[in-house]
Amino acid sequence: MNETFSFHLTHTDGGARKGKLSTAHGVVDTPAFMPVGTRGSVRAMTPRDLRDVGAQVVLANTYHLFLRPGDERIARLGGLHKFMAWSGPLLTDSGGFQVFSLGKRLSVDIDDEGVSFRSHLDGSKHRLTPDDAIDIQVRLGADIAMMFDECTAFPVSSDEARVSMERTLRWARRSRERFLKWQAAPASLPGMMTTPTQAQFGIIQGGVFPSLREFSARETVAMDFDGYAIGGLSVGEPSGVMSSVVSRTAMLLPVKQPRYLMGVGMPDELVDAVASGVDLFDCVLPTRNARNGQLFTRFGPISIKAAVHADDDAPPEPGCTCYTCQHFSRAYLRHLHLSNEISAATLNTIHNLHFYLDTMRRMREAIAFGSFDKFRLAFQRTYARRSRQEFQGD
Amino acid sequence: MNETFSFHLTHTDGGARKGKLSTAHGVVDTPAFMPVGTRGSVRAMTPRDLRDVGAQVVLANTYHLFLRPGDERIARLGGLHKFMAWSGPLLTDSGGFQVFSLGKRLSVDIDDEGVSFRSHLDGSKHRLTPDDAIDIQVRLGADIAMMFDECTAFPVSSDEARVSMERTLRWARRSRERFLKWQAAPASLPGMMTTPTQAQFGIIQGGVFPSLREFSARETVAMDFDGYAIGGLSVGEPSGVMSSVVSRTAMLLPVKQPRYLMGVGMPDELVDAVASGVDLFDCVLPTRNARNGQLFTRFGPISIKAAVHADDDAPPEPGCTCYTCQHFSRAYLRHLHLSNEISAATLNTIHNLHFYLDTMRRMREAIAFGSFDKFRLAFQRTYARRSRQEFQGD
Repeated sequence: MNETFSFHLTHTDGGARKGKLSTAHGVVDTPAFMPVGTRGSVRAMTPRDLRDVGAQVVLANTYHLFLRPGDERIARLGGLHKFMAWSGPLLTDSGGFQVFSLGKRLSVDIDDEGVSFRSHLDGSKHRLTPDDAIDIQVRLGADIAMMFDECTAFPVSSDEARVSMERTLRWARRSRERFLKWQAAPASLPGMMTTPTQAQFGIIQGGVFPSLREFSARETVAMDFDGYAIGGLSVGEPSGVMSSVVSRTAMLLPVKQPRYLMGVGMPDELVDAVASGVDLFDCVLPTRNARNGQLFTRFGPISIKAAVHADDDAPPEPGCTCYTCQHFSRAYLRHLHLSNEISAATLNTIHNLHFYLDTMRRMREAIAFGSFDKFRLAFQRTYARRSRQEFQGD
Repeated sequence: MNETFSFHLTHTDGGARKGKLSTAHGVVDTPAFMPVGTRGSVRAMTPRDLRDVGAQVVLANTYHLFLRPGDERIARLGGLHKFMAWSGPLLTDSGGFQVFSLGKRLSVDIDDEGVSFRSHLDGSKHRLTPDDAIDIQVRLGADIAMMFDECTAFPVSSDEARVSMERTLRWARRSRERFLKWQAAPASLPGMMTTPTQAQFGIIQGGVFPSLREFSARETVAMDFDGYAIGGLSVGEPSGVMSSVVSRTAMLLPVKQPRYLMGVGMPDELVDAVASGVDLFDCVLPTRNARNGQLFTRFGPISIKAAVHADDDAPPEPGCTCYTCQHFSRAYLRHLHLSNEISAATLNTIHNLHFYLDTMRRMREAIAFGSFDKFRLAFQRTYARRSRQEFQGD
């Protein structure tokens, strides 16, 4: 359907997969991690910094861009790629998760046709339907658009999860139809200025209930999306529960299409999910935690503000090849963080994103060499061990 | 005295001078502008961003680094160059100006021997004497250290200005003696871990009173510093008054040594001061105003948050070759600024510093070609004209 979008697996190793996702804006080596550019900017990073740490694809939030500066404005200015000066592959989420996660604050009211809420910026009333979410994403013009879904909280009863999952399936049909309509005739969408080539992913819901996940997967896959996301996880459930839902759900998805685990997660969770056959991830952890002074290392996270680093001239992670580790000591980064320097956020984010992207790179290598299980074992062992030590130190 | 420090004039054009300042950490082409790295970081910029915009020398604040993380700690960690990963030339101010400018907030108490004040961080009591200010700067190890001076406010009576200027002269003698003592035997300074090669500049005071400036210049020059700064300006006096004090004072300084106008200023003030023979400048304006959304252009400053830029896909300054102007529109930068994105501060700072450093480069070229007066006239005319238009537009 979309000639510019394709996905090819090049290696498998147990459940883990290595592949290439091709889009009109370039290729993404999978498994891949997508830094989150909430408002069309990965917070403390410029696009050239993102390239420098090895980012190949970026996620932007439909909800935030819809409210400000507005999807019609971005379309007038030539689309999201041009607006944010990110020439590589780009994915927009559906806006649904943001609305649900901001919850009470937005006075969210969900009905079968969509979601009503108040803007977190000025309290103004807004409504998002599946059609609206698609129209907005087509105007933004990212390479991958997501269907509009309802994200179930944790814990919920199986009845609540079923009702929500079934609504998501109805929204999936609306989302898919609307998307295909604009792909066939993009110029007929009011406010469109360009002709983006986009793919669209479906989202599997169903909470922690295997039969609901199974139903959701079967029905969504039948709608023939370009890829499939596992949604509704990392919302408070124990890590083991998430891991088990991911591995069961991934098995229900078409082998030849990309699988995206939304909003996950901690480094060891990424490794587990890759073992289950997941190809794409996004999460605010490396960027948000960087701004709060938490640095990820292969030995576990460290808190840069800890007094133990005051005179430490070692880099955040000895052996790391990122710009931050090659030039700056823990003592300096601690000083910048305590001084509320803007450069602290930038330097910490460079390291954390480099760590996440380098971990993905190492997983891809291990899969190609057929040594993913060995990598996984070594990673989990090293990561956990130092983590405990370091937390004592802090 | 310091074999690694030298200054050579290569061209003069009327009063304007072009030259090369050589230090142990590299060469600075003058006239030069020094970005301000208050706490050992130029705020929203990494050292590689600074290199990229053409910065050759950076200023750091002795007062801030003394309080946090402490000069002895920085010395233990290998000195300020290594600490902040700036391998190029570095200048530290005396700490005096910060104390005076923070004034009441610090409960400043000045006597003939030095200054007592409370830390702006935690209210703790501190005292800085000329000897202390030199010891701290030797431990920091910048290529250029400043003598400790008292900065007179504006307006003051000529009697007050005289008393203050005479105290500064006594402090100059103390500063010079102390500095030369450590240069002869750096290892004897407690806390020293390295042997920095530093130059020291004297500071001319005397407010807006020609006879006081003359006296201050004659006495300070007699102490044989490696260069001379004009202090106590840009503290509230009218621009014309400053301009006249600068040109009179510059004429009193040795032709063959570098002249540094402290804390100045707006782009057109820099051009005027270069015409009067000034070689070095520092100012927080390009970096601070960038964070507040003010962008300098050759047509005058613009406020990026103005509604007029909401749909403007032009760069901040058409024709500018900086990373920001090459990639981002006013509409995007406005969006980032209104969204309080950290990257807004970085991208705005890149442009403003590029503008300042490029203006210095264009002045150096004009001096080399003997066309500085022509440049100055064209600059002032263009800069002022658009400035008025734009402020109406905003």
